[in-house]
Amino acid sequence: MMTSPDSTGTVPVTALTGLSAFPLTPLKDGQLDQTAFIGLVQRLVAAGVDSITVLGSTGSYMYLDRAERERVIRLAVQHAAGIPVLAGVGAMRTEHVLAHIDDARAAGAAGVLLAPVGYQRLDDDEVFELFRAATGRSELPVVVYDNPSTTHFTFSNQLYGRIAQLPGIISIKIPGVPADPEKARAHVAAIRAVLPEHVGIGVSGDAFGAAGLIAGCDTWFTAVGGTIPVPMLGITRAVQAGEPAKAQALSEDLQPLWELIGQCGSLRVSAAIAERQGLAAPDCLPLPVQGLKPDQRAQLALMLDRLGLASL
Amino acid sequence: MMTSPDSTGTVPVTALTGLSAFPLTPLKDGQLDQTAFIGLVQRLVAAGVDSITVLGSTGSYMYLDRAERERVIRLAVQHAAGIPVLAGVGAMRTEHVLAHIDDARAAGAAGVLLAPVGYQRLDDDEVFELFRAATGRSELPVVVYDNPSTTHFTFSNQLYGRIAQLPGIISIKIPGVPADPEKARAHVAAIRAVLPEHVGIGVSGDAFGAAGLIAGCDTWFTAVGGTIPVPMLGITRAVQAGEPAKAQALSEDLQPLWELIGQCGSLRVSAAIAERQGLAAPDCLPLPVQGLKPDQRAQLALMLDRLGLASL
Repeated sequence: MMTSPDSTGTVPVTALTGLSAFPLTPLKDGQLDQTAFIGLVQRLVAAGVDSITVLGSTGSYMYLDRAERERVIRLAVQHAAGIPVLAGVGAMRTEHVLAHIDDARAAGAAGVLLAPVGYQRLDDDEVFELFRAATGRSELPVVVYDNPSTTHFTFSNQLYGRIAQLPGIISIKIPGVPADPEKARAHVAAIRAVLPEHVGIGVSGDAFGAAGLIAGCDTWFTAVGGTIPVPMLGITRAVQAGEPAKAQALSEDLQPLWELIGQCGSLRVSAAIAERQGLAAPDCLPLPVQGLKPDQRAQLALMLDRLGLASL
Repeated sequence: MMTSPDSTGTVPVTALTGLSAFPLTPLKDGQLDQTAFIGLVQRLVAAGVDSITVLGSTGSYMYLDRAERERVIRLAVQHAAGIPVLAGVGAMRTEHVLAHIDDARAAGAAGVLLAPVGYQRLDDDEVFELFRAATGRSELPVVVYDNPSTTHFTFSNQLYGRIAQLPGIISIKIPGVPADPEKARAHVAAIRAVLPEHVGIGVSGDAFGAAGLIAGCDTWFTAVGGTIPVPMLGITRAVQAGEPAKAQALSEDLQPLWELIGQCGSLRVSAAIAERQGLAAPDCLPLPVQGLKPDQRAQLALMLDRLGLASL
């Protein structure tokens, strides 16, 4: 794997640990809001996140065209102050995925994130071949993005293991862990058992962040932490410092936030937070996706005040 | 609604009845195979289908870029010999849907077909606003495309009725009917009850074609009939002639075909038929979607021979 610095971008990562924050790609009147996007990236830099993943589900990648995606990666790399920038490259067609990988590489991304997005239902062999094509396209490391709620594809541990053998795979982003700590640990261990040693595991589903890290995941891929990184970093650093009880307590403090995300989804909640805090213009999501409804926004505002997140 | 002839295309339809056939968009070495596509359209013209719907799920619309889609519509209109050509215009982002409608109109389509494709889960209000934007974009009639197996969105009859009030909606394409004839009739009647009189109902899911038409649907939107139209026309014409028992018997003769479609999906089966009959080059589907596996192709070949479909 290439590890020498790329003069035009961030250095390809060889492993992912800690917090990877997923910023929104805010729109303004239906166009990419570059100023707001740069502001979000700068917030993540100031907070000290370990990596920035643009064009994740939270970054609306499936709604953006090739030129918009390329612009987002370039802006992120320019403003990331050397923090590794990973970029989502998913698309319906393999050929388009490969074009996005070319663009990510040219724009200086440190790695890519790939979900098996489907319109037609894909089988394991089709998904494996997609990852084979993606890993063969460049030396950029690839994160396997398992997001069944949006892709409607279900990975087995067996398929994780098969894909993880491909050169260039560095991490598997799993959709969550069981609530019970023992079961969570067993879940992560069972995945770990099928992966080569150099391939890490990252947890997503923000409510599962603390539990996932405590259960042994290497990384927390956080959606809402792309907009409010400080509390998510607090949880992450507590686990890294060997203080799981503190991390668990910090996460429990955010229970009302996890509940709202459970109801409305992390994208809509993140966008509403950004809009309320002036980090994005109103209606920053790509239609047909609409933001929270007025009653949900009122609930969010109360909750942010009560949790002391409104000033972050 | 505009009904005057358009010198550059087919005449916008005011109602859809009979058989609407969905041709594949075959690729060759990953590029649009124009010769094969024209051949498929000419087969449908020769068979005498009532309309041709390009860029449906069978036409791989979600895998094609804007230029490819525009080319497909133009080719179809040029070779349709005046048979109305409808075009799928679905996309993740409303703005892209509207661009596809502009292209369909400029290319001479007689109507468009729109599915609420989602990456983020959409709610009823979001889907309604999508159809409001689409119907407001042009005078082209719009077919509501309910395809839950690919969109993962579930329409209620209440939402059908709400959308059907929008000017320009001419038909609801439903994903199937119950197997029991009485239940099928009640199902179609319940949908009919929420629709304005000018809005029709079309059945899809090829195994349900005969049952849907017998139960009172106006149209059969057929996937595999885009490749082998003659038997599907036979079924359609029998129902139209008041011979439901004959239509039912013709459909039952095709039971092995319906079973293979149930196992492998209509897109993969249609593509394998086209490839075997020399109507498309090998591997005509857009990757990551692969064609049938060798044992499924062998099963298909036997079945086509046994049913007498190999010479069609």
